[in-house]
Amino acid sequence: MAPKSYNASHPPIPSSTFDPNQRSHTHHNHTEADCPFCHISAVFRPYNPANPPPPSSALLNPELTSPQASAFVVLSTPHLVAFLDIMPLSVGHVLLCPRPHRPKLTDVSPAESAELGRYLRILSAAVVRATGVADWNVVQNNGAAAAQVVPHMHFHVIPRPELRDKRSERFTATMFGRGQRDELDEEEAVELAERVRRAVAEIMWGDGEGGAKL
Amino acid sequence: MAPKSYNASHPPIPSSTFDPNQRSHTHHNHTEADCPFCHISAVFRPYNPANPPPPSSALLNPELTSPQASAFVVLSTPHLVAFLDIMPLSVGHVLLCPRPHRPKLTDVSPAESAELGRYLRILSAAVVRATGVADWNVVQNNGAAAAQVVPHMHFHVIPRPELRDKRSERFTATMFGRGQRDELDEEEAVELAERVRRAVAEIMWGDGEGGAKL
Repeated sequence: MAPKSYNASHPPIPSSTFDPNQRSHTHHNHTEADCPFCHISAVFRPYNPANPPPPSSALLNPELTSPQASAFVVLSTPHLVAFLDIMPLSVGHVLLCPRPHRPKLTDVSPAESAELGRYLRILSAAVVRATGVADWNVVQNNGAAAAQVVPHMHFHVIPRPELRDKRSERFTATMFGRGQRDELDEEEAVELAERVRRAVAEIMWGDGEGGAKL
Repeated sequence: MAPKSYNASHPPIPSSTFDPNQRSHTHHNHTEADCPFCHISAVFRPYNPANPPPPSSALLNPELTSPQASAFVVLSTPHLVAFLDIMPLSVGHVLLCPRPHRPKLTDVSPAESAELGRYLRILSAAVVRATGVADWNVVQNNGAAAAQVVPHMHFHVIPRPELRDKRSERFTATMFGRGQRDELDEEEAVELAERVRRAVAEIMWGDGEGGAKL
């Protein structure tokens, strides 16, 4: 419940030995004070994704991030966290990121990269199931030239209901930083997040990982 | 050397138990006769990515795919293969895919998904090193509505030299299926592929995986 004590209760994850930017490993390595995704990471504690808490749980209160924007968590493990994009390109647009502050994909540890791959499949399947939309894009931007906005690496999972509607035109125009996106409706978001969490659990049980430990 | 015997020498990788499309598991599950990526997968055998063969090796002959388009392999393991995109959006544009025919990300097995995540980081770091371009996009399209062209799932790793040049405008227009892309220059491709393979090896040694087995 005390957000500040969260990190203390989990061992730090060693960062990669490869560092193309020769970034210094200071105490800012794991949490950046002004990073919105570090904030989400810090206030939402892990739960067993194969057995998520009910929507009423204090663990999932979207206002834990207050006074910053609400967050609707769909997956929360010791290493990763996923939540609804607050400016979605389509219904079911979610973000998956490592808990520690990793600016780019190359800043994650080998173990984190494997975990991201594993949950990217699970989360994709959950979004398909929760939205009923069979097609989707996965996008992950690294650096300003690649239109990365929040410098804490994240995968976008973006349902694509159809190619030739207005929203789709907007998608191409906005995916890399231009144009307008809708704001998330908070009531719909609560319900959608619950559907995604349940679908994650179902998929993990289907994989035979229902008994997986945290 | 005998492409048709390749699959026989490796145990089949079990496919995921989760299948949102309820695709039937026929003998076409692992190799599709008309899939260009299955063809690449079948003719390029695995090598130890921490100790790649020299460019002159028959294992890397781009014309192994003949009479189909040449392929410039940058990574080849028992489970995955990566190669230069033959219509690159920028220099260093590579594709990473599982060896077996998996139409979408949700069709890969849990083990394959973890492996894809692990090598997506290594390959990204290698492309940064080989091209000297620090920013890049990772894109993975699932289904026709998401502009997937080859129905064998693959991650694009696309260097982004800068945001405001002509090529960049073309990027946004072409990433999802429209507009024109350059054809790969074969001589440059041989050299570039070698640089990426060497960078993959360096990164794996840096990770302490230099002694990793196939």
